Amino acid sequence: MQVGRNPASTRRRAVKGPPQAASLDDIAIEEPLEIRVAGDPVAVTMRTPGNDRELSLGFLYAEGIIRSLDDVGSVAHCGRPEDEGFGNVIDVLPGPGVALAPERVLRARRGTLTSSSCGVCGRLSIDDLRERCAPVDDASTIDASTLTRCFEEMREHQKLFVRTGGVHAAALFERGAGPAIVREDVGRHNAVDKVIGTLLLSRAPLTLGRVLTVSGRASFEIVQKAAVAAIPIVASVSAASSLAIDLAEATNVTLAAFVRSGSMTVYTHSERIVF
Amino acid sequence: MQVGRNPASTRRRAVKGPPQAASLDDIAIEEPLEIRVAGDPVAVTMRTPGNDRELSLGFLYAEGIIRSLDDVGSVAHCGRPEDEGFGNVIDVLPGPGVALAPERVLRARRGTLTSSSCGVCGRLSIDDLRERCAPVDDASTIDASTLTRCFEEMREHQKLFVRTGGVHAAALFERGAGPAIVREDVGRHNAVDKVIGTLLLSRAPLTLGRVLTVSGRASFEIVQKAAVAAIPIVASVSAASSLAIDLAEATNVTLAAFVRSGSMTVYTHSERIVF
Repeated sequence: MQVGRNPASTRRRAVKGPPQAASLDDIAIEEPLEIRVAGDPVAVTMRTPGNDRELSLGFLYAEGIIRSLDDVGSVAHCGRPEDEGFGNVIDVLPGPGVALAPERVLRARRGTLTSSSCGVCGRLSIDDLRERCAPVDDASTIDASTLTRCFEEMREHQKLFVRTGGVHAAALFERGAGPAIVREDVGRHNAVDKVIGTLLLSRAPLTLGRVLTVSGRASFEIVQKAAVAAIPIVASVSAASSLAIDLAEATNVTLAAFVRSGSMTVYTHSERIVF
Repeated sequence: MQVGRNPASTRRRAVKGPPQAASLDDIAIEEPLEIRVAGDPVAVTMRTPGNDRELSLGFLYAEGIIRSLDDVGSVAHCGRPEDEGFGNVIDVLPGPGVALAPERVLRARRGTLTSSSCGVCGRLSIDDLRERCAPVDDASTIDASTLTRCFEEMREHQKLFVRTGGVHAAALFERGAGPAIVREDVGRHNAVDKVIGTLLLSRAPLTLGRVLTVSGRASFEIVQKAAVAAIPIVASVSAASSLAIDLAEATNVTLAAFVRSGSMTVYTHSERIVF
C-alpha cells in the first residue's frame, strides 16, 4: 500500500479457471480505521482508504456524538506520514468550548445500552434514536421512474466497483437530480457515512426531497444514518430488514427496497413515491 | 416478534410497483444480540435470531477468547422469557477452572490494539492472528467442479433467502460432500460464526479438506474465522478484499472468489484447486 496517497485499490496475482490461467487483478483495499474523539478510541471499522475525514464525521454524526460541523474543531490522521500504518488512525477534536461525549458510542457498541430487565432489543434501539432525532419533516415526493434513474446514475459513478467488483456504493441525490455525492467502500455502512460526512463538510443548507441510494441491503444502521441526517427517502437495490422497516416507519422515512429494472417494493411512507 | 421461539422472518406490508399494488412480504428479522462473557458485555451484533449459542461460540472462538468447547461451562440467554427483549442477550460462562479474557476483544474492537507508533494497520492485524493461530496444515485438494457444486448445494439450503431475499449464507462442506452445515443471517460474519459454532458444538474431530463457502464477499474477518478453525479452503460468490487475500496467504488458506457458473478466481494457495 502506498503511504499517504490513500489508494482505494491494489493488485494481486490470481489464477482463473477453468481453464487455468494466471492474471493480475484489481482488488479493493480493506484496512482498519480507528476513529478517535479527542484522543480516545471510539471505534475501529474495516474500510477502503479515502475520504476518511468524511467517514469519521458521518459516523460520529449518526451516533449522535456530533450534532453539526460546529461541534468539530479539527479532523486529522494521527502520527507521522513515515510511520507504518499512517493514515489508519484519525482523531476528531472538539471545537472551542464544545465537549463531546463519545461514551455514548462505547456504551451502545459494547452493549451496555440495555433495559433494566437485562435485554437489548430492537424497540429500545428505535426508542433511543427517536429520543435524539425528530421524525423527518419533509413532504416531498418523487416519481418512481426518477428513483429508478437514481440507481442508473449511481452505477455510472461506481468506478471502483467496475475495477474491482468488491465495493458497495451510496449516493445522495437532491430532489432526484445529481447525484450530488457518490462514495464507495468495502463496507456498506462506511459508504453511507462517507456520503453524509461529505454533506456535513459541504455545509450545504438542508434541502427537501433528498434521496439516499445504497447498492446493498438496507439494515437498521443505514436507516439510522438517513434519519439522523433528515433524509426522507432511502432506497436500496436489495432487501430491507425488519428493524430497518420498523425504524423507517417510526422516523417518517420512506424505505424502498429491491429497486431494480423499473420495479420496487416500498415498505414505509409510500406516499412519497408517485407511481 | 414471537418471544422465545426465535423466528428468523416476519411479515410487513408493502407497496409494489409500478403499477401500484399492496402486498404482505416475508422479511428477514434483524435484532441485536449482546454477547457476554461471565456477565461482561464483549460485543453487540445485529443478527437474525436463531442459533444464538452457535453464533456466540463461533464469534468467541474466532476472537481467541475460547480455544475449544472445553473452555465453556454454559451458554444461555439471560433473563426471563417474559422480559421484553428476552433472547437478545446471551452469556457464555467458563468451564471449571477456566479463566476467559474477553479484554482482548474489547481492546481489538475499541482500537487500542495499536502499534507503538500510533497506527492500526492490516499488517498488525495479520501478525496478531499469526501469533495465536498456526498456518493451516492441510494439503487436501478439491476439483474446481466440486467447488462449484458446493455453491449449488448451499443455494438449495438457503430457505430463508428464498423467502426474504434478505440474508447471507455460509456453509461447511467435508471434502466437498454435504453440506455438513448451512446457516443464514442478515450479517455475513454472523452466518460464518453460526457455522463454526455449530462445528464446535458437534465436537466433530478435525478432518482434512473442509471447505467454507460464503454467499457474499470475502473480507478479512471471514478469512480470520476460517483460519482459526483450520479450514483450508474459503470460497465466495463475490469479491475478496486486499486484506482477506493477504491474510489467506499468510495463514495458508486457499481463497477462491467470484465462484460462479463454473468459473472462479483463486487468489492464494491455488495448488489446492484442481482444474
